[in-house]
Amino acid sequence: MPLSPSHPSRQSDVHQTSFVALSLAPFRWRRRTAEYLHAGDSPERILDALIAEQPPDRDIDRHTLTARAVAAMARAKSAGIALVTWGDSVYPAALSAIVDPPPALWVRGNIAALSGPAVAIVGSRAGSAYGLTVAERLAADLAARGIVIVSGLARGVDSAAHRGALAAPGTTIGVLGSGADVVYPAEHRSLAGDIAANGGAIISELVPGTPPQPQFFPLRNRIISGLSRAVLIVEAGEKSGSLITARCALDQGRDVLAVPGNVLSGRNRGGHALLRDGAKIVESADDILEELGMCASARSSTPAPDDPVDAVLRGLPPGESCDLEAISERTGLTPARLLPKLFDLEMRGLAKRVGGGRFARV
Amino acid sequence: MPLSPSHPSRQSDVHQTSFVALSLAPFRWRRRTAEYLHAGDSPERILDALIAEQPPDRDIDRHTLTARAVAAMARAKSAGIALVTWGDSVYPAALSAIVDPPPALWVRGNIAALSGPAVAIVGSRAGSAYGLTVAERLAADLAARGIVIVSGLARGVDSAAHRGALAAPGTTIGVLGSGADVVYPAEHRSLAGDIAANGGAIISELVPGTPPQPQFFPLRNRIISGLSRAVLIVEAGEKSGSLITARCALDQGRDVLAVPGNVLSGRNRGGHALLRDGAKIVESADDILEELGMCASARSSTPAPDDPVDAVLRGLPPGESCDLEAISERTGLTPARLLPKLFDLEMRGLAKRVGGGRFARV
Repeated sequence: MPLSPSHPSRQSDVHQTSFVALSLAPFRWRRRTAEYLHAGDSPERILDALIAEQPPDRDIDRHTLTARAVAAMARAKSAGIALVTWGDSVYPAALSAIVDPPPALWVRGNIAALSGPAVAIVGSRAGSAYGLTVAERLAADLAARGIVIVSGLARGVDSAAHRGALAAPGTTIGVLGSGADVVYPAEHRSLAGDIAANGGAIISELVPGTPPQPQFFPLRNRIISGLSRAVLIVEAGEKSGSLITARCALDQGRDVLAVPGNVLSGRNRGGHALLRDGAKIVESADDILEELGMCASARSSTPAPDDPVDAVLRGLPPGESCDLEAISERTGLTPARLLPKLFDLEMRGLAKRVGGGRFARV
Repeated sequence: MPLSPSHPSRQSDVHQTSFVALSLAPFRWRRRTAEYLHAGDSPERILDALIAEQPPDRDIDRHTLTARAVAAMARAKSAGIALVTWGDSVYPAALSAIVDPPPALWVRGNIAALSGPAVAIVGSRAGSAYGLTVAERLAADLAARGIVIVSGLARGVDSAAHRGALAAPGTTIGVLGSGADVVYPAEHRSLAGDIAANGGAIISELVPGTPPQPQFFPLRNRIISGLSRAVLIVEAGEKSGSLITARCALDQGRDVLAVPGNVLSGRNRGGHALLRDGAKIVESADDILEELGMCASARSSTPAPDDPVDAVLRGLPPGESCDLEAISERTGLTPARLLPKLFDLEMRGLAKRVGGGRFARV
């Protein structure tokens, strides 16, 4: 049954509808939205505040956005697409730490896939045999170690990474530049189906039914990196779109890694340029795990005393959960600085997001 | 006519004989020898001092060393091998800056090749088609830009580098782990001949006739790097001897560069490990020239005011030459710290070694 904004069936549906409405607002509102979200405001208040801050615009009044949100939710429901909104306990902690997080995510497949430690593998759409082999092998090796492989379901390196993760067998997430029910390229429909059917997920911040458009792909790339602890570049030429993902990762404070390759083909110019600028060189899954502090030798249950996240851990009293504001007060760190550190603690298994924007020690 | 130590035909021959005698002393004396050399002592005094410092040893008394030196010089003369000793104006400035420089160098071919700005290219003896192509191409591109290509005349990457330089056409130096007249491997005799006949040189610190021995090759590697502004590694596996050359380069304060490649073959593990540890990644000759500050855009005729070598330049009064001691007094820098800076000034065309251990502004 489609929801009506004036007659919500449940209280949480109102919130969800408002989060979707927020996600339908112009993309230039994202950062401002995130400021309100991080401050803990309700989506209804954020929507009102943001609309009030803008010059009047027929297309983005609250009623229009809400009606479109309701329609999207109905379409999603009939298509079996789940909705995850900001503040949900399953909203990915890593993604919540970026400056422009999606207020809503549409998910085909296993929502729990969003909660695993993730590494993105992206690269050339026209991968060479070498690039495809490396992407597939590294994805399989990481997935076998419990890492979720995030990519963009594109031709070439992206789909090789997804396939490698599936073969492990492991979990993989495809992030689309179209609605979660509109697979582009069409030849990857069965791959998308395999991903969703095998513990992974096909996700998008765009409402179901949205056709792919060129401007969506760079925005999609920030979600690929935002979900991930690190972004690994495999075969990126000088103008590869995967370099945008690498740039997003740097902006988001995530590790950027690159696989080297042939210097004569020109296929690796982008990846090599990243290495020149300080990206970590990767030959094997172990290199990645080591870089992330996830290998057996580097794994540690207690941060070193001089560790900057140690103060954040101390700001989480054992046995109770705290919201960002409380942790901010205890630690003296702003929410923007706090979130990456909480994310780090979470990745190290020392803290946990418990829903409602609250965190607790593990 | 063979020279006799008691009846030298010319005064300089006495010195030359003594430098060769010094070079025949045990390798463990090299650093101590270098301290005396840098202090400006005569080879005769150094020989006496070093022998006096050692416990008595029949094999390394002055008479024996001198007699062997005389015999070596006679053999060299008949084989058309030139002798370059410490303090000669053609002794390579870059090599004089290392902690264990050879007191004598034996040279087949063009002595002037030793004075050019040089880059070493070394790598796997069992180079792949990719490694050989890259080595040859980079050597040709650098040689065409006036860079002397230094390598070890070994199979694989080394000989590809020499061949690339010859094809440019350009200048290349082969540094041997045997006498300059004993080419190993034997199949490279004609390559060695081509190098010597085309403006380049085959050199060794070992006296003519010395057969190759395993312990000579690591020592030879310090000369390859010592002659060079930078060492470029092409296809080095985990245990490649070229990693020793890279280590020498680091110890000598030279740039270490590496060409990346396939991560699946295992052929590049050594090179990639160097990149992980901070070596510069190289895709083209331009990358190398830029790294060395030799590209058009980065070339500068005047050091920046805060440049550490600027003080050394000020220590060289225009229009006169100074020995190390005088520059040391003027600048307050020890000769060991001074030499790399003088070398740097020389490479930048701002200073010049004028022979007799003296330096002058250009």
